Amino acid sequence: MSNLLHVPPTADYPTPPISSAVRAGDLVFVSGTPGFNPDGTLEAIFAGQFARAVEELARVMIAAGGSIRDIVKVNVLLTRETDVPEMNRLYSHAFGPTPFPARTTSVVAALPHPQMLLELEATAVIQLTGTRG
Amino acid sequence: MSNLLHVPPTADYPTPPISSAVRAGDLVFVSGTPGFNPDGTLEAIFAGQFARAVEELARVMIAAGGSIRDIVKVNVLLTRETDVPEMNRLYSHAFGPTPFPARTTSVVAALPHPQMLLELEATAVIQLTGTRG
Amino acid sequence: MSNLLHVPPTADYPTPPISSAVRAGDLVFVSGTPGFNPDGTLEAIFAGQFARAVEELARVMIAAGGSIRDIVKVNVLLTRETDVPEMNRLYSHAFGPTPFPARTTSVVAALPHPQMLLELEATAVIQLTGTRG
Repeated sequence: MSNLLHVPPTADYPTPPISSAVRAGDLVFVSGTPGFNPDGTLEAIFAGQFARAVEELARVMIAAGGSIRDIVKVNVLLTRETDVPEMNRLYSHAFGPTPFPARTTSVVAALPHPQMLLELEATAVIQLTGTRG
Repeated sequence: MSNLLHVPPTADYPTPPISSAVRAGDLVFVSGTPGFNPDGTLEAIFAGQFARAVEELARVMIAAGGSIRDIVKVNVLLTRETDVPEMNRLYSHAFGPTPFPARTTSVVAALPHPQMLLELEATAVIQLTGTRG
Repeated sequence: MSNLLHVPPTADYPTPPISSAVRAGDLVFVSGTPGFNPDGTLEAIFAGQFARAVEELARVMIAAGGSIRDIVKVNVLLTRETDVPEMNRLYSHAFGPTPFPARTTSVVAALPHPQMLLELEATAVIQLTGTRG
């Protein structure tokens, strides 16, 4: 596994047994990313958690050697159906302009922390000069 | 990102800020694909939505330069547990004959549109002559 | 599709129309893997199903030409929020030591079988000498 790059989770608060991302060649697999504040708390409002999740996703992509613009696929996991329109509005700004990544949005029964309103999971392809198609 | 091919969503009805698929080299990441009719409505019965989702998946795979037979992994998202047996029956015809793609089926709490009964998400590997394994 | 390796499901009990995994080059896409016993039953307790799912995941990864240590991404699907702490404990032993794969955990409304408490879905990258960055 010498060619893999594991991006460790932030050390600011306790995290589960995961890497925030694993890069293998030009592919990056990013864990479901919740919107925790740096002190490990979660804001009550959706827009606050969404903004923090996008910041964390950007941090992880940079640590993996790329940027948020290299993301080709996003899975948006929500806990409330009513957040879909606001999510789409915020998402357009965070992941635009067009062309956007492929994406799947689902509303799950729960996420690991009871106050978690969303997670953003991503797959990215970092373009390397001369190695791929 | 010059080596990426983004397949835009159909222009027939309003869609969220997504690409229907993104191709990067031989890999294709397809968005969760619901079973909308061309006029943007959703049939009430499961088989109707399933058939339309498969047609749309086929369209997207062709636009990406491949076909539905290049799919290696499917995620089936349902909103009703009772649709599992019918889904498997319809799925066998749509994705067979054997060998089938890898697959995960889950029943979620909701999908983005209240009448949506399913989404089909897929990953494909288009075999290029001489480039891979 | 001549360069794909499909790992068939076990023949011990009826399975849906899937491959347990599909390998394409160095990438392996593993189906959502439940914790069935060899006789097709499911233990009532979470730890029992988890252990069986990990065993099956290991079997599938070996059949694909790799091992559980090649997994770069896991999706843990649970049906009960209360199983999260125990899952993390069991998971640390099964997938450790660090560095861990990337991972997303969600609690879904249901899985295909009413007694199923979890599924483990995985993506792996098998390191081939000299083929990938």
